[in-house]
Amino acid sequence: MGDSAKKYFKCSVKERAAFELGIKFGALYHQYMGIPVDFGNVDVLERAMEESIRVQPHVTDVKVTIDRSGLRKDRKDTYGYTTLNESNLSADITVIIEGTEVKGSMRYVEDLGYPLMYITSVKEIN
Amino acid sequence: MGDSAKKYFKCSVKERAAFELGIKFGALYHQYMGIPVDFGNVDVLERAMEESIRVQPHVTDVKVTIDRSGLRKDRKDTYGYTTLNESNLSADITVIIEGTEVKGSMRYVEDLGYPLMYITSVKEIN
Amino acid sequence: MGDSAKKYFKCSVKERAAFELGIKFGALYHQYMGIPVDFGNVDVLERAMEESIRVQPHVTDVKVTIDRSGLRKDRKDTYGYTTLNESNLSADITVIIEGTEVKGSMRYVEDLGYPLMYITSVKEIN
Amino acid sequence: MGDSAKKYFKCSVKERAAFELGIKFGALYHQYMGIPVDFGNVDVLERAMEESIRVQPHVTDVKVTIDRSGLRKDRKDTYGYTTLNESNLSADITVIIEGTEVKGSMRYVEDLGYPLMYITSVKEIN
Repeated sequence: MGDSAKKYFKCSVKERAAFELGIKFGALYHQYMGIPVDFGNVDVLERAMEESIRVQPHVTDVKVTIDRSGLRKDRKDTYGYTTLNESNLSADITVIIEGTEVKGSMRYVEDLGYPLMYITSVKEIN
Repeated sequence: MGDSAKKYFKCSVKERAAFELGIKFGALYHQYMGIPVDFGNVDVLERAMEESIRVQPHVTDVKVTIDRSGLRKDRKDTYGYTTLNESNLSADITVIIEGTEVKGSMRYVEDLGYPLMYITSVKEIN
Repeated sequence: MGDSAKKYFKCSVKERAAFELGIKFGALYHQYMGIPVDFGNVDVLERAMEESIRVQPHVTDVKVTIDRSGLRKDRKDTYGYTTLNESNLSADITVIIEGTEVKGSMRYVEDLGYPLMYITSVKEIN
Repeated sequence: MGDSAKKYFKCSVKERAAFELGIKFGALYHQYMGIPVDFGNVDVLERAMEESIRVQPHVTDVKVTIDRSGLRKDRKDTYGYTTLNESNLSADITVIIEGTEVKGSMRYVEDLGYPLMYITSVKEIN
């Protein structure tokens, strides 16, 4: 596909790819926080989040995982569901721009008490 | 399922059901605005939105429709997608509490220039 | 102000007012979850949320409170902030339509483990 | 402030700074889309968005601008307000990590029909 935005960037391709990857993680986290989750919707929600990230520019791979350990198996009460929050959402995303691949992850890091987003590799793939 | 929240409501069952229905429409609109949409994710996104509303208390039926007329069939550029916005999202939701059914809809009303949420029927179904 | 949407509602004024109040609570919760909070932005964030709810139809009064007990006084690390979540956000909102006033609240209810939204009063004020 | 997350990053400081900047723009866009706006809340909303971005790691400067040309001066109808959308929101953000400064902007680009986020400069400031 064409890349009509290239001319706006005053940086290297690696920096642009890192920036684009950051956009996807920021979007993922802040778009979906608060969505109700139980065993009835967790699978389709993961897929929808993945497919919606894949629509965005330069994304070549994406995996979203919602931790099921917090979901209540036996929903006796209509209020007994959980919501998507900082500690039950993980993701791995890959961006490629002009042969430069940047991969990153989001994981809840217990030591930090924080859903950390970080770069796991930068490489040229031809 | 149990209804552990009943005691908090100082109103009639019909008013409570109308209130619960309003919560679902407010949530639907404000949770999902801005999600990227093209022909690759529109189907799974509609389903995920429906299933996520169905998780919420007292919802018995839900239909979400994203208008495909604004989606670009021939995505030549990586930036050539659209996003969920006030004019391409419609929904119909039904809530039932203690035998009282309230139905409502969200439609973009051209005359108002507004994504109106409104009640289409209130009735006792027992 | 004019009320150009009245004709769409197939219900009583009380039910419409309850529905409108529900919309505001659903919007509040699902719009703002995940926003970073520390002592530097908590005041302006509360005010912005209140003023943004006040823009919506039929709202006459609104109070938003973010619990400060979870905010870290001594931010030694750049990752040492919290985010708006289901347990630190409270609100009270009033809606009036054609002389019918409906008041409601959102509180995190420990027993339910749930941010409950409920109606606290319905009355005619004319 | 301390930087307890540094060890997770497998990339250069410039790439990390670009990534962190991207996170902020993705967060900004996807957190706030859909918020009601009129002349009553536009000023406080801009400030709250700025202050909430400033809370996030490594941000040293931020300016958010909501285009007022789409706001209706004479709100005759209760439904006569607009919402934050892809075309009325602009922002400029600066991130600094270990002496590397990365600046970026978000502008709605008419030619693309797209709210483009891009890097405007990368430099070492020590």
